[in-house]
Amino acid sequence: MQNKGMLVLFSGPSGVGKDTVLDIILDKDDMLQRSISLTTREKRQGETDGVDYYFITKDRFLTMVEDGQVLEYAQYGENIYGTPKEPVDKWLKEGKTVILKIEVKGAQKIRELYPDAVSIFLLPPSMQVLENRIRRRGTENEQDIAKRLEIAKNEICRSADYDFVVVNDDIDEASNNVLSIIKALNFTYKRMNHKISEVIKNV
Amino acid sequence: MQNKGMLVLFSGPSGVGKDTVLDIILDKDDMLQRSISLTTREKRQGETDGVDYYFITKDRFLTMVEDGQVLEYAQYGENIYGTPKEPVDKWLKEGKTVILKIEVKGAQKIRELYPDAVSIFLLPPSMQVLENRIRRRGTENEQDIAKRLEIAKNEICRSADYDFVVVNDDIDEASNNVLSIIKALNFTYKRMNHKISEVIKNV
Repeated sequence: MQNKGMLVLFSGPSGVGKDTVLDIILDKDDMLQRSISLTTREKRQGETDGVDYYFITKDRFLTMVEDGQVLEYAQYGENIYGTPKEPVDKWLKEGKTVILKIEVKGAQKIRELYPDAVSIFLLPPSMQVLENRIRRRGTENEQDIAKRLEIAKNEICRSADYDFVVVNDDIDEASNNVLSIIKALNFTYKRMNHKISEVIKNV
Repeated sequence: MQNKGMLVLFSGPSGVGKDTVLDIILDKDDMLQRSISLTTREKRQGETDGVDYYFITKDRFLTMVEDGQVLEYAQYGENIYGTPKEPVDKWLKEGKTVILKIEVKGAQKIRELYPDAVSIFLLPPSMQVLENRIRRRGTENEQDIAKRLEIAKNEICRSADYDFVVVNDDIDEASNNVLSIIKALNFTYKRMNHKISEVIKNV
């Protein structure tokens, strides 16, 4: 019997480098599948439906929520973002490792639905480094930066809810560490149980 | 504050390749420390006291047991083998990852004393492969081989007590998988807690 896949919740404050880490590890491991979010915002140039996001109308979004087809969702400004249930369940059934980039509140909702989910929090080496990274983007004013850092601090305080914490000091090292965690979790007794039965049966 | 080290219990049936895996991983990671056993048997040619074993008398062994200086011990034929407490505690205090090659009963005793210990069971790909490996050694008669396989089967049944199970099909792959597990366990929330406090404090 094939083992069911694994759900990995991947969080960390804005600016810590989640997307870069994800790009690196998805490139290195074919069994990893990045979850694609639903959004009601307009498609930007260069974005593809079903690759960057599933772009849907607000009406459709709310119908999906009512039908229990959205695992978690949140509104940012005018737009709603959420995680669709169907593709996640399909990939898990296929034995894939599904990675969900998600903020701490959404992660908490998904833990309740998928208690076997493994969660990894990406931590900046210091708040100063995080601030520098946000400033380097150069897209925000002082007030926005201060607000973002305050949110980051609150999120880091909630990292206690996570199974693993990886510091993103060096991007390659952090990516390797995240990959090591995912790899190692394939060898928990629970996931290897079928193999043990197989070895003992064949005597 | 430096994190305390980690105790890793490493088990598997005789002939599965525990020593080869240990040699490979100890060579790759400087922070790994192999625990050295006590024994009352005679030192063989080429063996060094304090490297291969601590060679001690039976009287000394029993005194150490009485003084609570032996974590677990077992008698095989005339000889007693055991795990000394003092070096393990010293290495853990130094932050090292201490690996203990140990059979399943001894592992159970150590889990009671060190509930944070992580345990890894090395599984043969099949009983047939294990039998072939034992036969290839060529040192045993049919009766001994049958007995060894029966013990192996009982041990494999107790792999449910272990946190992780790694199949030793290819020795390099198995060694890498064991290393991944040990590496990943350095990033559990509990072990990263000090780093999180440090990041939040420096705001």
